Amino acid sequence: MLDSPVRGFLVGEFETRLERLHKLMSTKGLAGILLMSEPEVRYFTGFLTQFWQSPTRPWFLFIPVDKKPIAVIPEIGAALMRTTWIDDIRTWGAPWPKDDGISLLQDLLEPLLKSGARLGVMKGHESSLRMPLGDYERLMSGLGGIEVVDATDILHNLRMVKSAAEIEKIAHICGIASRTFARAGDIFHKGQSLAEAFRAFRIECLTQGADDVPYLAGGADQGGYCDIISPPSNRSLESGDILMFDTGATFDGYFCDFDRNFAIEQADDLSRRAYDTLWRATEAGLSTARPGRTCRDLFHAMAGVVAGDSDAVANAGRLGHGLGMQLTEWPSIIPTDRTVLEAGMVLTLEPSVETVDGRIMVHEENIAITETGAVFLNARSPELPIIGGR
Amino acid sequence: MLDSPVRGFLVGEFETRLERLHKLMSTKGLAGILLMSEPEVRYFTGFLTQFWQSPTRPWFLFIPVDKKPIAVIPEIGAALMRTTWIDDIRTWGAPWPKDDGISLLQDLLEPLLKSGARLGVMKGHESSLRMPLGDYERLMSGLGGIEVVDATDILHNLRMVKSAAEIEKIAHICGIASRTFARAGDIFHKGQSLAEAFRAFRIECLTQGADDVPYLAGGADQGGYCDIISPPSNRSLESGDILMFDTGATFDGYFCDFDRNFAIEQADDLSRRAYDTLWRATEAGLSTARPGRTCRDLFHAMAGVVAGDSDAVANAGRLGHGLGMQLTEWPSIIPTDRTVLEAGMVLTLEPSVETVDGRIMVHEENIAITETGAVFLNARSPELPIIGGR
Repeated sequence: MLDSPVRGFLVGEFETRLERLHKLMSTKGLAGILLMSEPEVRYFTGFLTQFWQSPTRPWFLFIPVDKKPIAVIPEIGAALMRTTWIDDIRTWGAPWPKDDGISLLQDLLEPLLKSGARLGVMKGHESSLRMPLGDYERLMSGLGGIEVVDATDILHNLRMVKSAAEIEKIAHICGIASRTFARAGDIFHKGQSLAEAFRAFRIECLTQGADDVPYLAGGADQGGYCDIISPPSNRSLESGDILMFDTGATFDGYFCDFDRNFAIEQADDLSRRAYDTLWRATEAGLSTARPGRTCRDLFHAMAGVVAGDSDAVANAGRLGHGLGMQLTEWPSIIPTDRTVLEAGMVLTLEPSVETVDGRIMVHEENIAITETGAVFLNARSPELPIIGGR
Repeated sequence: MLDSPVRGFLVGEFETRLERLHKLMSTKGLAGILLMSEPEVRYFTGFLTQFWQSPTRPWFLFIPVDKKPIAVIPEIGAALMRTTWIDDIRTWGAPWPKDDGISLLQDLLEPLLKSGARLGVMKGHESSLRMPLGDYERLMSGLGGIEVVDATDILHNLRMVKSAAEIEKIAHICGIASRTFARAGDIFHKGQSLAEAFRAFRIECLTQGADDVPYLAGGADQGGYCDIISPPSNRSLESGDILMFDTGATFDGYFCDFDRNFAIEQADDLSRRAYDTLWRATEAGLSTARPGRTCRDLFHAMAGVVAGDSDAVANAGRLGHGLGMQLTEWPSIIPTDRTVLEAGMVLTLEPSVETVDGRIMVHEENIAITETGAVFLNARSPELPIIGGR
């Protein structure tokens, strides 16, 4: 198992995040911001729990423009929240369907209403309202007249550029997944059902040091696979199959997100060529990735290689994306995304190509943007790895 | 590994679900219902993927009162959705921030607006809006005048009563978690860090046949633990510790949710008595649980036992809840929940008690309501298990 980075963050990290947030809030004229989604609450508090799996209770964090965050949370989370740097923790005995935190929020937000101030809420792309819509409508109606401003871009701008401590965690989990994939020849074999292969991958990834494997998708078929988001099919691995696993494993709340392709016992020429095309596309992506270039540039660099080799650019909707506290984050590597790359961003490069009979091959890498370019966070293989039978 | 039930469901199961939904919609005068959350989309389609981990793309299911569901989803999910019983699948090349499915929904919903019909949306307790709030507001403004009705109770009533095939999956994962806990003496030991114990539990649970372990919380300390939702602390297991693991493992998209307490090498009297109190509380819960009784009755049956033994009823907010496609579902075992129990419901019984110095012990079991009573879905231990050092 790899040596682990220290878990959690120093308080200074949270102070820096808050300071940057306060500046952006001032620029936008926001008196406060109301957050309720897991990554945002965690980003400003360090509150890390899988209990968000339970959809029963809402959790809130209110951040005034000039003060530390105030947690408004179910009593069941108070002990854990008290271990963070947050001092002001207000709780209620949830679940309480008639008033699940709404009165507490009303008390907190009324001063803003009275002073005619603006409240930020995340309403934009890639966000959800992680509370009952009816409760939100009731809260807003109780604050009739308060000006609500979409604060999504503020949060995206902040979280998009990772600190050194964040990148260390992402690099660590990328290393763990790389070592897991390096054992493919030991854990996958001809005749194995895909369900068994999924289980073997998860166990190996935990053994290598992952905290969890929240995302695992995969497929296998002759010359490629039909989609990249499915649970295991009933198929058993056959000679000549192209096997793909795409994993979002985590360490201390941070994700990797990359895939690997393997040929079972033998690879046909079309598969080798497809792999080579995708390899060169990611190389083109890497050499384009540096501060000042855009997501649009990355898209064209990779799409150009794929289009040069084939008429059939497969369409997964984009050729990569951000990652970090979530499996996928903004920006998107699409022609219309002109986000300018900055040192500290962490991205996937994810070109894909159609192979045969509507099947595809997808190759995904994780990179971090540095002051002078970009670096891969995961181990790589320039040729399609062939793994033998047992 | 246990023999697995067949994965997925027969089409008849989806037809029955739809038929029951249509009846409830008619009663409520709904012309259609718009769903967007993972369990609801899956419940009516069978669309099972971990890709919901990516928050980037919204997914929609529109169900007219007199027709089969219509999927409005990102292109990346089309291949998987085509493997389900759904015929009408409309896709777009997501992510497309300017129009992430909104035009497609607008086209679908406009006929309702024109006919003055009512649209159901989930807005109530335990629901979230799994799409950007700004997009929802834009959609509703484009449908200005459409009457939106909260459909949460319809979905809750439907999903709360499980079919035999659903209960088989839940019982299967409860069996897997039971066999994992039965190996506690082999996988946990004095001196082990909690992080290592978490990893060992996950690996054992996968080895026993779980698809995944999306929820795992735990704690350990002398005489109890401080909270029940935390990731592993830095503590190493010591003699006399009470170790608790609470797991939500999954099989084919269905959860178990129960915990187990263990004493490391030795148990003090207070811990034994606390365990005995909780054991008798769950026995009281089981003997109360049958069709016709309410969640309120269950609460009082269990709270009565705990209060009879101690002044200190610990408060996790409730003494149990529903489960199934989600780690926690309605109803809640609280004094104000008068939900009447029906055969087919699956619930947790989860009494807790304060032990010493603000520490607690929580004991959780999973039960299914039958025509004549209730049955435990997990293996049990009437005495606090003591596990030795290596």
